[in-house]
Amino acid sequence: MAKSATARARAEAEGRDSRDAILEAAARAIAARGVRGLRIEDVAREAGVSPPLLYYHFESRSGLVRAALERASERAPSARLARLEPGHTGYAAVEAALLAELDESPEIRDNAVVWGEVSASAVFEPELRDDVRRVVDGWRASVAAGIRAGLADGSIRRRVDPDETADLLISLVDGLCTRWLAGAIERERAQGLVRAGVRRLLGPA
Amino acid sequence: MAKSATARARAEAEGRDSRDAILEAAARAIAARGVRGLRIEDVAREAGVSPPLLYYHFESRSGLVRAALERASERAPSARLARLEPGHTGYAAVEAALLAELDESPEIRDNAVVWGEVSASAVFEPELRDDVRRVVDGWRASVAAGIRAGLADGSIRRRVDPDETADLLISLVDGLCTRWLAGAIERERAQGLVRAGVRRLLGPA
Repeated sequence: MAKSATARARAEAEGRDSRDAILEAAARAIAARGVRGLRIEDVAREAGVSPPLLYYHFESRSGLVRAALERASERAPSARLARLEPGHTGYAAVEAALLAELDESPEIRDNAVVWGEVSASAVFEPELRDDVRRVVDGWRASVAAGIRAGLADGSIRRRVDPDETADLLISLVDGLCTRWLAGAIERERAQGLVRAGVRRLLGPA
Repeated sequence: MAKSATARARAEAEGRDSRDAILEAAARAIAARGVRGLRIEDVAREAGVSPPLLYYHFESRSGLVRAALERASERAPSARLARLEPGHTGYAAVEAALLAELDESPEIRDNAVVWGEVSASAVFEPELRDDVRRVVDGWRASVAAGIRAGLADGSIRRRVDPDETADLLISLVDGLCTRWLAGAIERERAQGLVRAGVRRLLGPA
């Protein structure tokens, strides 16, 4: 008790830091062993906090999983699409953002595993579904915004419905990510298919 | 021991039946609780066989999971694409087979859950990867065969690479299945996106 109270007081003083440390530890744990292997005690220990502090921040195991998904969504490359950098066409920005979802960096891979794991777990844990739907809708909206930018700047000349096309592209990339993470397709070939999909859905008719 | 030996003798006499009963029980268990929640003892009990008989047929837990994936693959609607029914064009056959992956029947849903679960588990269980790759490759080959049939019968007039297009279509359907099973998209809307994807990748240029 004394230890837990001390730990809690210290962590509360550290404020936001402890929340971030817990989320980082949760993401690492999910990337290594999956959502189904996630144990609150392990995450707390790895984050250097007490389990009660973890519950204080996230209320429940499923609250922690939902927050991990939210974090993965914020860190996903496509999330940056909404703020288009100057000098990039809409077409190039959409292609680059979708290709980046299959980047070789360990952070991107871990992020993709977290995303895939929470989606797969939502089949059996209905309390996760609203959150999965929300982050997927956000992903689609940011890709649709990139397509609209491309239609406006002339880099996408084919007359396409931005929302339908965004839906097709994110589902394609999601399916390829699953295959890549499962070891059923090489990353480079999956990226080649993303390029082909973007070209065939957005490129010159 | 006596009971186990009796059960084994009886089941061996029943031969193939017990193997099928175990696979059916495994598929039901995976569809209900996922691969990660799969317990050999539960499957054996539900199939009415002894755990030793289950090990006799499948060697290990991962052997059972691999056999469940194989079964899901054989029962997947796209698997029937290879034998094109008379009167169906290649285009219609490809579209129907891909739409059927999102059919509302409980068997199709359970089958899709098994497929998705084994793929998701392969991220953490490398011994599953070769099997996932093999069934995905088989799926792609059967869709590519349907596309070739459509190019031959004139129902697909766009000049497409059958293998690349099949790869794009199965990844799209896989991504949509994941979203559907996770409750992040309605089944009917997902089917509408399958139709749109087929039309935009195979339809008139």
